Amino acid sequence: MTLTPPLVVTIGEILVEIMAVEPGHGFREPTPLIGPFPSGAPAIFIDQMARFGHPCGIVGCVGNDDFGRLNLDRLRADGVDVSAIRVHPEAVTGSAFVRYRPDGGRDFVFNIKQSANGAVTLDAPATALLGRAGHLHVMGSSLFSPEIIAANEAAIGRIKADGGTVSFDPNVRKEMMALPGTREALERVLAQADLFLPSGPELFLFTSAQDEAGAVAELLARGLRAIVVKRSAEGATCFTQTGVVSIAGLPSEEIDPTGAGDCFGATFVACWLQGMEPRAALRLANAAGALAVRKKGPMEGASTRTEIESLLAGQAQ
Amino acid sequence: MTLTPPLVVTIGEILVEIMAVEPGHGFREPTPLIGPFPSGAPAIFIDQMARFGHPCGIVGCVGNDDFGRLNLDRLRADGVDVSAIRVHPEAVTGSAFVRYRPDGGRDFVFNIKQSANGAVTLDAPATALLGRAGHLHVMGSSLFSPEIIAANEAAIGRIKADGGTVSFDPNVRKEMMALPGTREALERVLAQADLFLPSGPELFLFTSAQDEAGAVAELLARGLRAIVVKRSAEGATCFTQTGVVSIAGLPSEEIDPTGAGDCFGATFVACWLQGMEPRAALRLANAAGALAVRKKGPMEGASTRTEIESLLAGQAQ
Repeated sequence: MTLTPPLVVTIGEILVEIMAVEPGHGFREPTPLIGPFPSGAPAIFIDQMARFGHPCGIVGCVGNDDFGRLNLDRLRADGVDVSAIRVHPEAVTGSAFVRYRPDGGRDFVFNIKQSANGAVTLDAPATALLGRAGHLHVMGSSLFSPEIIAANEAAIGRIKADGGTVSFDPNVRKEMMALPGTREALERVLAQADLFLPSGPELFLFTSAQDEAGAVAELLARGLRAIVVKRSAEGATCFTQTGVVSIAGLPSEEIDPTGAGDCFGATFVACWLQGMEPRAALRLANAAGALAVRKKGPMEGASTRTEIESLLAGQAQ
Repeated sequence: MTLTPPLVVTIGEILVEIMAVEPGHGFREPTPLIGPFPSGAPAIFIDQMARFGHPCGIVGCVGNDDFGRLNLDRLRADGVDVSAIRVHPEAVTGSAFVRYRPDGGRDFVFNIKQSANGAVTLDAPATALLGRAGHLHVMGSSLFSPEIIAANEAAIGRIKADGGTVSFDPNVRKEMMALPGTREALERVLAQADLFLPSGPELFLFTSAQDEAGAVAELLARGLRAIVVKRSAEGATCFTQTGVVSIAGLPSEEIDPTGAGDCFGATFVACWLQGMEPRAALRLANAAGALAVRKKGPMEGASTRTEIESLLAGQAQ
């Protein structure tokens, strides 16, 4: 063992996001758009981890097209180990068209399952990367096929067998929870996780208790070392066996909230792996989330440790 | 037999097109876009056929998403029989991102083969539509998989057995010609075609002669009833067993040339099926092509017979 922080790996979707410029309903007529932006929840997570300065890599698959190259360029430039991103010879890079509705909800047109993302497997470069990893982050949104569930479960087994740790962000849509086998897969991931990072009501996805104290007690009893409930602009709370720490949200001009939870999560996980106390980790993660919402584009708001600390220094004055 | 013009059917890709607003190279960084526009060469062809007032339908497959609905809405509204457009429960609607390069060339990011378009088959609604058809139009760009080649060949066999006719527009990229089996498939389609609609140098795709007179003689000797060489802004020429007719291009402000060849082709085929002489058919087709380039968006420039005749009336003055 060395004192080097453990390499963090995540497995999952890498995509481009195309954003409608004007709010409205869906994509049934031509409208001004802007894109492609690099995206995908695990990709945003790992990019924030790299910008924060923590060693990390991602197992994924893109197409042999500009959308794939855009993501590879960005992740590589920001310091992510891209050796386990396969370039598929035929499948296209995944994509998501996003339009904000006037009510603040969002309409999407996704191409994920049938894109290169559907071909993610633990091939030789992925196995090599995982062999060097000390922590695996599992994003629930990535568990959209039996093959990718199997890849994540195999990776969890390998990481845990080597004494590593696992974090889990459910980040899952209602429609996905309804797919056969998904709930069971998420339950199995949770059972192996050390750190659980639900957003608001996701705290109750896997508990019988429907009040916060009861749900937290239930989850901690299953062996989780920490539960971090993300509450967007309202801050966050970290529950451990020894206590509860809450932090208020930072005031931030919200331009685009996409990716903020992933930036929060990555920063918290990095701090936690570096041995930081929950309050200090929450403080940095909270600032990373606040910086993330200020930029248009899902991955554009990922920030360096210096940027995060500057924001906090400004707040403290 | 009645005097009703024969129903025209085509089989092939239906997609959305997303256009970069500014010229440049590819899609490796965010750029202003506009879309989605309904698109796909056979879809544009059949939309122009319907707007011209000729009975027609298309066999295709879209996803259960806004991009599919956008196309269904447009084709239905313009009078295309959409009964054989399958809505795939899982695959996504095809897409093409297009950016004009400063040199006038184009860069693309396609999702076609792995989209719903890859699932086109002669299912019951397609067989029913073809059973009512008297003419099949084959677009070379659609022949991108063995399954779709087989579907087109089965449709040709059925149409010809019932005494119907076939038109063939090669509309094929160099890269596609290099795929195993594609050239042979295109040769087999040509051998069954009554009407051949190459664009410029496509005239020589299937001939040993490399001069126009020789190529035309070779093709007519194989049994084609007419060859129409499309020359974009330079007009067109129709070769038959009995003669040659050329027409000069119409002056037109070019906003977006995509789809002009398809609009030309559909109008010519409709006129030919309605028994019009080559010169009159070329004149209307030429005007349809000139109208098509004036609108941004691949299918936006499809025009009605009234619009085409108005343009020609204006020219004649």
